[in-house]
Amino acid sequence: MDKVLIFGHRNPDTDSICSALVYADLKTKLGASVEPVRLGELNAETRFVLDHFGVQPPRLVDGVSAEAKQVILVDHNERQQSAPDIEQVQVAEVIDHHRIANFETSQPLYYRAEPVGCTATILNKLYKEHGVSVSKEMAGLMVSSIISDTLLLKSPTCTEQDVAAARELAAIAGIDLDSYGLAMLKAGANVRDKSVEELLTLDAKEFQMGAYKVEIAQVNTVDPNDVLERQADVEAAIQRTIDAKGLDLFVFVITDILNNDSVAIALGRAAKAVEIAYGVTLDRNRAVLKGVVSRKKQVVPVLTDTLANYTA
Amino acid sequence: MDKVLIFGHRNPDTDSICSALVYADLKTKLGASVEPVRLGELNAETRFVLDHFGVQPPRLVDGVSAEAKQVILVDHNERQQSAPDIEQVQVAEVIDHHRIANFETSQPLYYRAEPVGCTATILNKLYKEHGVSVSKEMAGLMVSSIISDTLLLKSPTCTEQDVAAARELAAIAGIDLDSYGLAMLKAGANVRDKSVEELLTLDAKEFQMGAYKVEIAQVNTVDPNDVLERQADVEAAIQRTIDAKGLDLFVFVITDILNNDSVAIALGRAAKAVEIAYGVTLDRNRAVLKGVVSRKKQVVPVLTDTLANYTA
Repeated sequence: MDKVLIFGHRNPDTDSICSALVYADLKTKLGASVEPVRLGELNAETRFVLDHFGVQPPRLVDGVSAEAKQVILVDHNERQQSAPDIEQVQVAEVIDHHRIANFETSQPLYYRAEPVGCTATILNKLYKEHGVSVSKEMAGLMVSSIISDTLLLKSPTCTEQDVAAARELAAIAGIDLDSYGLAMLKAGANVRDKSVEELLTLDAKEFQMGAYKVEIAQVNTVDPNDVLERQADVEAAIQRTIDAKGLDLFVFVITDILNNDSVAIALGRAAKAVEIAYGVTLDRNRAVLKGVVSRKKQVVPVLTDTLANYTA
Repeated sequence: MDKVLIFGHRNPDTDSICSALVYADLKTKLGASVEPVRLGELNAETRFVLDHFGVQPPRLVDGVSAEAKQVILVDHNERQQSAPDIEQVQVAEVIDHHRIANFETSQPLYYRAEPVGCTATILNKLYKEHGVSVSKEMAGLMVSSIISDTLLLKSPTCTEQDVAAARELAAIAGIDLDSYGLAMLKAGANVRDKSVEELLTLDAKEFQMGAYKVEIAQVNTVDPNDVLERQADVEAAIQRTIDAKGLDLFVFVITDILNNDSVAIALGRAAKAVEIAYGVTLDRNRAVLKGVVSRKKQVVPVLTDTLANYTA
């Protein structure tokens, strides 16, 4: 039997890396032949998590079709966020918590999406449904994913199910949710030692919204000014990305994880859509988005709706 | 709170009608405000089932956006198989067992697809996951759906999970699986009293396959000759449908439920794709497809793959 590869999205975050590792653990215990892989470099937050729980990262790949016929996607489904050769393999399963778009199969598949804050919250359910117990290490990876995706249970994407799963998993993992969580988020929020290019690609996702090609990058900080003091360099790098990829809009969301607000820098011929979507005015290409911390819940849907009726 | 409508696909079959009724029962017991509806007329098989278990059919609607903001799809996901105004409502949930195509949301949702033979097999799991017991009537609707979709557990789409669910539900419903199942299938397989137009629309689904617009209709019979003796009329009606809808291909699959084979009648500018897909020759526009009984597993994937590399 061919091995099935399991992976999260490009520019992987903690949920994409950990959910691949965790689902591979569950599938292996259920007798399947699978291997977790990753489509990009580990970020500092994810390295902190893997170090803390002594887990090896998934193997880095730049394509999947050379070594697998079937794959399992975690934490994403949209083609442009997946492996570059995703069209050449069969997607056998998807475990995800995002909208569904740019996704199509010719065969029936196992697709499990739930409107919760984190893929790991769904995976925790799957262990229970299959009657498989969760190890300390896997609990650690799952609770870390939940902390990452929900900004320590504070994001509007966080549901009661995420809170319950986080508490349950923290106990198994032997961590204090608040102190571990803050240390973990801070490990990923150190933006001073990162290049402008790193800031823009660490957690960037591309979306087709109506007629517009949009990229939304996000970075967590303990102080947005650490990024904004380099705004001229940031804008130059964004403009290079827009030109290289033919984007209509690039939105860079700089999130303050202590105050739970964001500053957005928007460039591209459709930048005005950000003003319409949030009722703000872009001043030097930027605007404060009060209370916005979630790309999935507070950025993608409003921009999708705005761009559906927008003429750039 | 607004009521959420639950419905299956157009030209509803037994699974689409019964799964809407059954999921509405489960959601209601879980405290949700929902109503099952249907997008088309009941077929004779489904009427047999509802009569047998004394269950009222769902209300017939020709659109959903006038009375609901949110909907739940069962037994389908593709836009062209759904309510005509599906773009104007939010799809909150999908419970399905088909491929995913022509489906997109702007918001995260609950999507539960499994590669099993019948939606009802998944619904039976959901009752268990939520700790809700299944009534005799709902068990009857679910086992009937499984019998219908798997041709009494004989279709290649039938999985071990469908067999186990059918046995378990037959016991709760108080029926003998074989004798009830055959009576039920025969009730739906009486083609002699149906018009040619009825035969072609009873269970017809439209698909976008690459550049081609394809409609695949299926009818169950105890003897395909009951249909084939009216082939000239059938072809005239198919041609009218092709012209009216601008189809590239219409495949009419006449399935022999006793011998588990089918005869296909194929018309349209892409009809030759059927010859390539099955290695057969169309003689008077028709060919025997040995062992083919499942549109989902034995027709849609092979035609999709063939048409991907086909020039009509």
